[in-house]
Amino acid sequence: MYLGAIEAGGTKFVCAVGDDDGRVRQREMFPTTTPEETMRSVIHFFQQFELKAIGIGSFGPIDLNKSSHTYGYITSTPKRKWESFNFVGEMSKHFPVPIGFDTDVNAAALGERLWGAAKGTNSCLYMTVGTGIGVGAIVEGRLLHGLLHPEMGHILVRRHPEDGFAGCCPFHNDCLEGMASGPAIEKRWGKKGAELTNHTEVWELEAFYLGQAIAQYILTLSPEKIIVGGGVMKQTQLLPAVRRYVIDFLNGYIQHEAILQHIDEYVVRPGLGDNAGICGALALAKQALGE
Amino acid sequence: MYLGAIEAGGTKFVCAVGDDDGRVRQREMFPTTTPEETMRSVIHFFQQFELKAIGIGSFGPIDLNKSSHTYGYITSTPKRKWESFNFVGEMSKHFPVPIGFDTDVNAAALGERLWGAAKGTNSCLYMTVGTGIGVGAIVEGRLLHGLLHPEMGHILVRRHPEDGFAGCCPFHNDCLEGMASGPAIEKRWGKKGAELTNHTEVWELEAFYLGQAIAQYILTLSPEKIIVGGGVMKQTQLLPAVRRYVIDFLNGYIQHEAILQHIDEYVVRPGLGDNAGICGALALAKQALGE
Repeated sequence: MYLGAIEAGGTKFVCAVGDDDGRVRQREMFPTTTPEETMRSVIHFFQQFELKAIGIGSFGPIDLNKSSHTYGYITSTPKRKWESFNFVGEMSKHFPVPIGFDTDVNAAALGERLWGAAKGTNSCLYMTVGTGIGVGAIVEGRLLHGLLHPEMGHILVRRHPEDGFAGCCPFHNDCLEGMASGPAIEKRWGKKGAELTNHTEVWELEAFYLGQAIAQYILTLSPEKIIVGGGVMKQTQLLPAVRRYVIDFLNGYIQHEAILQHIDEYVVRPGLGDNAGICGALALAKQALGE
Repeated sequence: MYLGAIEAGGTKFVCAVGDDDGRVRQREMFPTTTPEETMRSVIHFFQQFELKAIGIGSFGPIDLNKSSHTYGYITSTPKRKWESFNFVGEMSKHFPVPIGFDTDVNAAALGERLWGAAKGTNSCLYMTVGTGIGVGAIVEGRLLHGLLHPEMGHILVRRHPEDGFAGCCPFHNDCLEGMASGPAIEKRWGKKGAELTNHTEVWELEAFYLGQAIAQYILTLSPEKIIVGGGVMKQTQLLPAVRRYVIDFLNGYIQHEAILQHIDEYVVRPGLGDNAGICGALALAKQALGE
């Protein structure tokens, strides 16, 4: 019996089956088109296996309130065809097993805590910087939900004094996502990040915003470990610069050796690498089984 | 048998005994002078009663890590005489009962959740705006600690374009506390807040900063209830303006009726009024007893 896992993204779905120790046994990828078409592939994939639980880490916004009548739905997403899609309901119809459902970034945070860079901690953040910026959080051993779920990618940031870019978030213009997501980089500099590798000013500015945001998260959530992944972070020069700005912005206020002396082990890459998302969904399945 | 409670502040200590339902039976207040002198009064007060547990909500920074050898200490406080004071150790010597120890604002958050404005929720923030700005948080039913404890009063804020005040935080100059605490108001306008009641521009600017900060907290922690107390909030025109700015800064991004339709019941005054701190310490005692 396997754990089933879905990493449901805006452009692709990754489906996998794996073991209790987070090892992926088989995986397949489908493009995100319509719910009908994509889900047909998903269901077909899982029908090959005997499953004991399923975990879904999904793009959002999604309804995570178990007492809500739309629990398990994708809600007001800009991907219109997926709006009001009953994700958990659809999976339950075909697979009568426990189903864990959470945001893609919460899933990744859980996976990193179980099997990755945050192993042994009681709290961590998983941040992804790519098409959007999302952050999942574990606090006192539990995934953070609250009223809805965090939307940390949309916190306001203080502008760099030399940055004249207007920002590209449709809600807030120059919030973090509006200033530092992949599309923001492309819009500001006229080229994709991957084509700007040697332009130090690009990554210095990017680090200014990401380091600032992480400093805000530290002041607000005080996590034991911060994991940063996503396409934009593939620029290897970026993470060290981000760490430098985290320290700059905190300016000695948080007196803790994790920050003052061991920042390289405090703000880190995903221990599960590019598997953080799908292993996170496996972790959700495992958690659902235990509940 | 009573619950004992200490609200340990930088200028005064409030000691009380109370019941399991949060009712204060007797209380006394002592100035915060030296640890020797103040603690003598504290111990003398509690020796009059039979106690089953004690809760301490303390100014900080404090060490809350139970596996640390300085657990229960006040650590690097600017109040030099209290630096490295073993608060829990000193109380334990005289009262061999379970002792709960947390930040003053975490205590207040717990009290408000048990008996006040956040009753029935699973997550809340308690924010106090006075000499400093502090915030305590309950997430998924538990007090948020993490690496250290949150220091949400020190998040960066975006300046109001017409505000030329440099800020007064010794670490960050113009962080939230540096721009919106009681001393910041006094330094910016040359008068104490209490003497500025009729100056609408003062409270509009104050609401701009507090509303902005609360919007950041909502994006990061997604609490079910936000409670705002402290001396500065005694200005009755302030809270409605703060709510207005919360909505402005979120700009429709968080689609939840609690914010869009019921902000008056979402960002609220303490249900326990001026007793939030001392009842919070009672709540810590109750929690310690249950552990």
